[in-house]
This record gives sequence, C-alpha cells and structure tokens, in this order.
Amino acid sequence: MALRVVGVDPGLTRCGLAAVDVETNRRATLVGVTVVGTPPDVPLDQRLLAIAHGIDAWLDRHGPDVVAIERVFSQLNVSTVMGTAQASGIVIAAAARRGIPVALHTPTEVKAAVTGSGQADKAAVGKMVAKILRLDSPPRPADAADAVALAITHGWRGAAPGSQASASSHGGSAGLTGAQRAWAEAEAKARRAGTRRAR
Amino acid sequence: MALRVVGVDPGLTRCGLAAVDVETNRRATLVGVTVVGTPPDVPLDQRLLAIAHGIDAWLDRHGPDVVAIERVFSQLNVSTVMGTAQASGIVIAAAARRGIPVALHTPTEVKAAVTGSGQADKAAVGKMVAKILRLDSPPRPADAADAVALAITHGWRGAAPGSQASASSHGGSAGLTGAQRAWAEAEAKARRAGTRRAR
Repeated sequence: MALRVVGVDPGLTRCGLAAVDVETNRRATLVGVTVVGTPPDVPLDQRLLAIAHGIDAWLDRHGPDVVAIERVFSQLNVSTVMGTAQASGIVIAAAARRGIPVALHTPTEVKAAVTGSGQADKAAVGKMVAKILRLDSPPRPADAADAVALAITHGWRGAAPGSQASASSHGGSAGLTGAQRAWAEAEAKARRAGTRRAR
Repeated sequence: MALRVVGVDPGLTRCGLAAVDVETNRRATLVGVTVVGTPPDVPLDQRLLAIAHGIDAWLDRHGPDVVAIERVFSQLNVSTVMGTAQASGIVIAAAARRGIPVALHTPTEVKAAVTGSGQADKAAVGKMVAKILRLDSPPRPADAADAVALAITHGWRGAAPGSQASASSHGGSAGLTGAQRAWAEAEAKARRAGTRRAR
C-alpha cells in the first residue's frame, strides 16, 4: 500500500505541485505534477486566490495521505519571502481543512535526501529525481521539480517503519518553536557554508 | 449609506478582527471586535486552520464592503513575521474568495490617520479610537485595537469622494511591486527614526 504524498514548493509566481506514490520498499511513482501561479503584475488578492484554488483542486484530485511543503525562511530572498510565506499559509490551511497532516522540509534536507548531498545543485536534483521515478528526463514543468523532490523526501521518511506516526510528528513539529529554531539554525549554517538556493 | 470595513491585524497567537461602519461624513460606529488565534505550542497547521475558520466566520457574519489588513514587513519582528505573513495570506484569500476588495495599510499610516502622528504609541491610538467611536474606553480585547484602527483608517479613505474606487485601487496596489517597495522604504525610514511598534 503506497503512501501518497503531495509536495508543494510555495510561491506566488510559480507554486510547484506534485503528487508521488511511495511504497514501503521506497519505490516512488510520479502521479502528477503542475505549476500554478500568476504574473507579478496581478493584484495580490487575486494572486493568493489563484494559489488557493490551485491547491484546493490538487488536493481534491489526488487525495494525498500527507502534504510536504518547503519550509520558508525569513532570511532567504527577502524581496519575495512575504509572498512565499502567504502562499505557504494558504497551502497549509487547505491541507488542515481536509484533515491531511502537513510536514515541512528544508531545501537542504530535500537535496540531501534525493542526492545524498545537501549542497547539490538544481540539475543534480532533477537528474536524481528522474532516476528515482524511472523517467527518461526530469519531470516537467521544471519549476515543479522541487515539489517532486519534496514529495519523494517525505515519502521516504514516511515509508520507513512507523510511517504515519512519522508523518504526523513532522506535521506537529511545524508548531514547535524549538524545532523551528533548530532548523533555522541548521539552515543558516548551511547557507553560510555556501549552500545558497539557485533561484 | 455606511461603508462596512473589516479590519484585520494578522497574527497566529492574536489575530485581531474588527468591523466598523463608516459614514460619508466620517462618523464611525463599532459593529464588533474579537481576537482569534492559538498558543504557540499548537501545531502550525492547526494554528493556521484556526485563523482560516476565524476569518471565514467573521466575514460571513459581518459581510463587509472591504477588508483592510495590516501590511506585513519582512524587516519587522523576524521571529514572528513568517507566521504573521502566513496568517495574512489566509485572510487575503478568504476575502478574495468572497469577491471582497482588500486594502493594505502600514502601521505608520494607521497611527497617522487616527492620531495625526505616525509616531503615536499604542495608548494614544487606543484613546483616539475610543473617542472616534464615542466609547467610554478603548475597545476590548485590547489586542484588537489595531484592527479597529485599521478599519477606521480605511473607512475614512473609503468615505472620501470616489470611495469604492479608492478601496479597490488600494486593493490593487497590493500587487504593485513598485508601490510595495515605496511603502517598505517609507516604513524602514520611519523605523530608523524610532517609530518601532511596541509589541
């Protein structure tokens, strides 16, 4: 019985949405991938509404067991971080409305999970994602590759023994200030070491 | 015919919600005020769900003509800004789902509108809000005073000639990167001049 994971890379212009089935033997199969979002010249309320409609439709279509979303850091990309955080809030609330647990993962965690290195670049992540999913090339649209990688990352954790408990404890950790601080510190450290996200 | 404004001071722990009727002669009447939110130890998804349910109920109950929400700056209160931005995203999407225009106002704008000074402290804002609304004391809960002040600020703009156009152009300005940048710069300047928000 596979765990269906929806991965979300939040953003206003490009919000990547993926659905991946992960079996207990770690075999992962791509169910679907898309990008929703609006150009920067659209009013903010309409941009957030597009994200809300997009995630609602994606969750209703794929009925995931868990939603894995990229953890947004206030330190990164200051010019776009507010919109990204607003989008992530809408996605998390959409999952919570449906009783679907939410897990947050950092970009470094995702890179490490799919490539073995927290410093991997976008191309390396795309290649490994294709290999893991038995595809001829990285999934398209390329903007959604991070969402696919997020889903795999979480599915591999979720597919480990005690999967559901693991998923919900990750969802729960979203509210733990101590855990958030620990991640933020780890991320800041990784960033200082030169692991900037190429965006 | 009064303009009904819902004011929202976004936050995860205390999200202030107000409803104020503002007539074309600037007379403002408090319709209702409340605070929704959850303690920091509640998981993030449940915290955001509480905000979503709270704003949905408030909008359905009061049926406002416009929603005025505090503009969140990434520079302010780094430790809480992500949660505040996530909450604001949910509020803006809730209004957009209902076709209600959204306007964003900075704390400095709100202070200037109700007290005449962008440097006013919380007590001065509370006193003026009480006076404007013909109340014996500042509205309670006190955590919602900013939401009430936001609603008055927007109502006074909205009650000026060309009210609805003004409201929607403010809503529209939410998406204008240039305008956002201008506000951010003005706010940063005000902050450097010592106008920190007492929170």
